[in-house]
Amino acid sequence: MEHPENDSQYLGLAVNSGVAQPPIVNPYLKKRKRKPLPTASELVEGILKGDVTTLSRAVTLVESLAREHYIIAQEVIEKCLPYSGNSRRIGITGVPGAGKSTSIDVFGLHVLREGGKLAVLAIDPSSERTKGSILGDKTRMEKLSMHPDAFIRPSPSAGSLGGVARKTRETIVLCEAAGYNNIFVETVGVGQSETAVHSMVDFFLLIQIAGAGDELQGIKRGIMEMADGIVINKADGDNIGPAQLAQAQFRSALHLFPPTASGWKPEVLTYSGYYELGIPEVWEMIDRYFAFVKKNGYFQEKRKEQARWWMYETIDEQLRKHFYDNPAIRERLAVCEADVLANRRSSFAAAGDVLSQYFKK
Amino acid sequence: MEHPENDSQYLGLAVNSGVAQPPIVNPYLKKRKRKPLPTASELVEGILKGDVTTLSRAVTLVESLAREHYIIAQEVIEKCLPYSGNSRRIGITGVPGAGKSTSIDVFGLHVLREGGKLAVLAIDPSSERTKGSILGDKTRMEKLSMHPDAFIRPSPSAGSLGGVARKTRETIVLCEAAGYNNIFVETVGVGQSETAVHSMVDFFLLIQIAGAGDELQGIKRGIMEMADGIVINKADGDNIGPAQLAQAQFRSALHLFPPTASGWKPEVLTYSGYYELGIPEVWEMIDRYFAFVKKNGYFQEKRKEQARWWMYETIDEQLRKHFYDNPAIRERLAVCEADVLANRRSSFAAAGDVLSQYFKK
Repeated sequence: MEHPENDSQYLGLAVNSGVAQPPIVNPYLKKRKRKPLPTASELVEGILKGDVTTLSRAVTLVESLAREHYIIAQEVIEKCLPYSGNSRRIGITGVPGAGKSTSIDVFGLHVLREGGKLAVLAIDPSSERTKGSILGDKTRMEKLSMHPDAFIRPSPSAGSLGGVARKTRETIVLCEAAGYNNIFVETVGVGQSETAVHSMVDFFLLIQIAGAGDELQGIKRGIMEMADGIVINKADGDNIGPAQLAQAQFRSALHLFPPTASGWKPEVLTYSGYYELGIPEVWEMIDRYFAFVKKNGYFQEKRKEQARWWMYETIDEQLRKHFYDNPAIRERLAVCEADVLANRRSSFAAAGDVLSQYFKK
Repeated sequence: MEHPENDSQYLGLAVNSGVAQPPIVNPYLKKRKRKPLPTASELVEGILKGDVTTLSRAVTLVESLAREHYIIAQEVIEKCLPYSGNSRRIGITGVPGAGKSTSIDVFGLHVLREGGKLAVLAIDPSSERTKGSILGDKTRMEKLSMHPDAFIRPSPSAGSLGGVARKTRETIVLCEAAGYNNIFVETVGVGQSETAVHSMVDFFLLIQIAGAGDELQGIKRGIMEMADGIVINKADGDNIGPAQLAQAQFRSALHLFPPTASGWKPEVLTYSGYYELGIPEVWEMIDRYFAFVKKNGYFQEKRKEQARWWMYETIDEQLRKHFYDNPAIRERLAVCEADVLANRRSSFAAAGDVLSQYFKK
């Protein structure tokens, strides 16, 4: 399967393609055929047919920073919306070293055995496309990347977490419209990304490994409380004992947590991604979860709540951006922050000072 | 000790006291002597002398919604700032039924035996002063309320959480300037208030009781991860066994949590507020904490971080308020939210719609 990851480059060149320009020849760049920008209708048609190349191009437009691309992308998303929603959206996280890629590879193959299609997306605001992460993703998910019904897309390239997360959420809409009824959204488990993912998935899976009493080293505080399921990887050979001990510890810890909003009791299982042991059991748990929340109505309620959340989150983010991007405000802010840190002014007086400057205009 | 809780009333009447007005006689109201508004300098002088009546009046100005009071209050706070900071700020939370009031009563008396003074503040955005919460607080903290070195102030009356929390944070400054070197900030343990308290205290204490495996019923998810210490109340008589079991469970759960930013390992102790058992041990833990974070520099670092946090939090809150208080925006927002919930528009397109209306003006 081809992932035309260079779309963004020729799309970037194509922006002014309607205007006659002298050719710019850069001997270090391979010559590219200029393709015209597709229309929203063309893209929607291709997406609804499940055409992977079209889907990829549309996702590239979603990820693009160019205004022209943004406008087309928004139109495509609006037109795909009525065809979206019909998937299981599963967030998967775990620290580096927990065997996340291998796990996603075998989880994905397991899911695809039931039929349907799978899209694997990622949120990692620190990623940079130019550093070859696609090649990385293909290598990391060896079997999935060869599978005709899997669509693997790395994290949108570096940007604000809000921006990166928004793009991933919009990409989910496009994938669902293209018939992907399983969506995995992967995060690295060490940053703020998990909250963003949590607000776009139905089920949140935390991958752990057994360790010497510091199983959660490196996992950000608060992530454990988001998990609908904790799975302990590398439960094979000599490691079965430690993995089972970790399982018992996590179970007892979860027991002390307050009940989840869904009424679901998070489960703890062990498995081995490498030896492919215990995989069906993990997916039976996830199936049980979906049956449970669809029956009690939480599934639908949460999706609505998430849609509302993203609307308000986007508004709040843009209000902040408009304020903090203002150079005069930034200058004043630096002075006020220094006063606050030196205890010369209260936090509230300093905030009031900058705000009055902002609203005066 | 008198807490002149009626300050806000005569201060409210005094606003226009410089202007001759016909007397308004309401036969249902007791006649009050009109006092002129004190100046900021008068208030600061009284506060620095440790005069409780002046402190109370200043806090009432901080809590007032009147613009004139706000201006004086801000001046008082600025002038008190250089004299503030020299206290232990301790957040205390626990669900109703955990014996919080009795505990604060005995914890407070214990602290006062070491000398110094204690202020007990509260954050409860749902409280309403008119419902007699002051009388309630006095009854709840029977011994403390009689103590000459204790200053008990209930939560500012109902308002937004941000507003209520801001007032409590400003009150801390005034209390510290008045020589209160121990500040307790109490919350009810079931809402959003804990995050706000966490960002104004040095140590966060969670009061629990032993229960049939559901110790945290009612406690909001995430609160446990904020705690620097968990103390299990009602460890007396037949309840000692269950309390110790709960202690073991909490210890094992905390063990699975990622390390705290301070490097401090949260401790779990049992005590009995009613029978006054185990109280010194709880305070030895808190003393250990303060010694630890003062030595490794976290104490100072966290206070600076909190001051910065409140500045940005206030800015963000005011940016949102300015947006959401606009009637035209609210109207448009309602339409957009309905579209989003019905899956007719994406969250981002809807947000963009309302934002463009806001920034157009």
